[in-house]
Amino acid sequence: MSASPLDGPAVVYCEGAFNTPNGKTAHGLARFTYRYKVLAIIDSRYAGQDSGEVLDGKANGIPLVASLSEALDLKPQYFVVGLAPDGGRLPDAGRRAVGEAIEAGLHIDSGLHDFIHKDETLMAAAREQGVQVRDIRMTPDRDKLHFFTGDIEEVDCLKLAVLGTDSAIGKRTTAWLIVQGLQQAGRKAQMIGTGQTGWMQGAKYSMIMDSCINDFVSGEIEHAVVSAYRDEQPDVIVIEGQGSLMNPAYPGGFEILAAGRPDYVILQHAPTRVEYDGFPGYPLHPLPEQIEAIRVVSGREVLAVTLNHEGLTKEEIPAACAEVTRQTGLPCYDVLAHGAEELIELIGRKLR
Amino acid sequence: MSASPLDGPAVVYCEGAFNTPNGKTAHGLARFTYRYKVLAIIDSRYAGQDSGEVLDGKANGIPLVASLSEALDLKPQYFVVGLAPDGGRLPDAGRRAVGEAIEAGLHIDSGLHDFIHKDETLMAAAREQGVQVRDIRMTPDRDKLHFFTGDIEEVDCLKLAVLGTDSAIGKRTTAWLIVQGLQQAGRKAQMIGTGQTGWMQGAKYSMIMDSCINDFVSGEIEHAVVSAYRDEQPDVIVIEGQGSLMNPAYPGGFEILAAGRPDYVILQHAPTRVEYDGFPGYPLHPLPEQIEAIRVVSGREVLAVTLNHEGLTKEEIPAACAEVTRQTGLPCYDVLAHGAEELIELIGRKLR
Repeated sequence: MSASPLDGPAVVYCEGAFNTPNGKTAHGLARFTYRYKVLAIIDSRYAGQDSGEVLDGKANGIPLVASLSEALDLKPQYFVVGLAPDGGRLPDAGRRAVGEAIEAGLHIDSGLHDFIHKDETLMAAAREQGVQVRDIRMTPDRDKLHFFTGDIEEVDCLKLAVLGTDSAIGKRTTAWLIVQGLQQAGRKAQMIGTGQTGWMQGAKYSMIMDSCINDFVSGEIEHAVVSAYRDEQPDVIVIEGQGSLMNPAYPGGFEILAAGRPDYVILQHAPTRVEYDGFPGYPLHPLPEQIEAIRVVSGREVLAVTLNHEGLTKEEIPAACAEVTRQTGLPCYDVLAHGAEELIELIGRKLR
Repeated sequence: MSASPLDGPAVVYCEGAFNTPNGKTAHGLARFTYRYKVLAIIDSRYAGQDSGEVLDGKANGIPLVASLSEALDLKPQYFVVGLAPDGGRLPDAGRRAVGEAIEAGLHIDSGLHDFIHKDETLMAAAREQGVQVRDIRMTPDRDKLHFFTGDIEEVDCLKLAVLGTDSAIGKRTTAWLIVQGLQQAGRKAQMIGTGQTGWMQGAKYSMIMDSCINDFVSGEIEHAVVSAYRDEQPDVIVIEGQGSLMNPAYPGGFEILAAGRPDYVILQHAPTRVEYDGFPGYPLHPLPEQIEAIRVVSGREVLAVTLNHEGLTKEEIPAACAEVTRQTGLPCYDVLAHGAEELIELIGRKLR
């Protein structure tokens, strides 16, 4: 974690969604961010509890609070919308909270599709209060976007892509744990952020895939990877995945495999998840089928599976990892519960 | 072909690119369009020849001319940029031609990424002349875009996707030939356009994939298919593919498979093409591997292969089709050279 944040002290709004798939932006910020100092997270359902304790069973010193007024006592400068609802729309209660935050003089950051900028009332209030509103997912002007050039070919450091068997399954968190684990092991590692939460966590080399114009997605991924390589000369580049290859409506990750040219894939999987996130009635494709799809489409090999332990007790995790290894012949690690050391050692063996 | 065009008489600009992969927009318009009456196509390299003769060996009555001034004698109302260069930028000669067309009082339609709207001089001239400039690829406002809803499940007519083993390989032309063949056979068939040329050819239910915001691609495909189904009650819906699944930088077609839910895939292939279009040094994946990738990723079966006969003589086509069938076990048709009748009969057998 960086000593001083890129931006400033923040309160994260996650009413009704913390510790659910719709709270994933808040979860990322609860775990860490280089962009803000997170003072509190708003979700009245968990008021009084420690957000790290609720999320990962490890206290992080960031309290969950019942309301904005309670959070204001901590003197935040930023109000960050930490909800990631299906469809990306801001609920009315959230809109009211943004209004209150503006009235209280806080800057607003939002990664939703439903731009604060479209709300005349909120924007007028923001102008009046002299606060800044950033809609992270606003599509960049084409003039700022890059087409694929082939420069990716010059990137000869180890490149890893962290993909997942579903969306909202922990790809980004695992990617950060790998980057930080490599850094702690004395390796130069760079995270390539591909979503708004990665940006909110302060990934220096980022693009926001889902708000990018489709024809520029590959070029923007390449540009982020090549920029990280040229500017930082890292030993390892870790690319955050998006969506899942076999999702029933939103296939994702193909541009990362094609334009990012990873040497290996790390595949995040939740053994207890039976249906695709947001698609009741659509059974998740079995893990071996998904590994085969990666191999057939991209020729890339999965180096290891990383476990999402949702629905498992601490005691059940080792058996779940063993079962993944039995099914796939691949090592499986729960980097959130047990740390990334073993995976970092495995990656270290692949370093040139 | 419709008796009266949606818009009006047009001249298509394709200087230096006709009969090359960079001329594919002009090729589509030379073959037919419901939107314009094409009077002439500009490419001085072929001046005096018939565009259909050059392209397909079949006269279409649309002459290739050396210059705009020559074309103006035919009294066009629209100047259509028929170039599709890699990167989508308009060359200087093309920019000058657009300027001359505006001065001559023609409306401008362009499907390039390089928007005419960004050129102050050209736009000022257009305002002065009172002509309309349409940049077909401008990204629609999010408020006009659709997320995936699942309504695709109600579409119970036969759905086909025409994918390809490479880009610029003839997917759109084959899709139109299937739609028109089905209509001639007395079936109600609808084309779902997914590119700017499909729009320029007058596909009624369209989205433009590569200029769409990434997160809305699946929803826009679903919306176009569901709208065609609800409004037209067709027997068959044919979805135009984009790019190619295993392209070295621009993987495409996955959203069509996931969100469009085709019953079958028709796969366009050019046996003489050894490298990916625009990617020298990147060998095309073998046809059987590409068919396997479709099956593994989407569970969809390829119903037939359609042949692009580039690099083949008329005499070599039957043997090339036989070789595809030998490699894949699938029927193979050259619908451009031999018509779509046999393929239409095969599709007819799949109709409920």
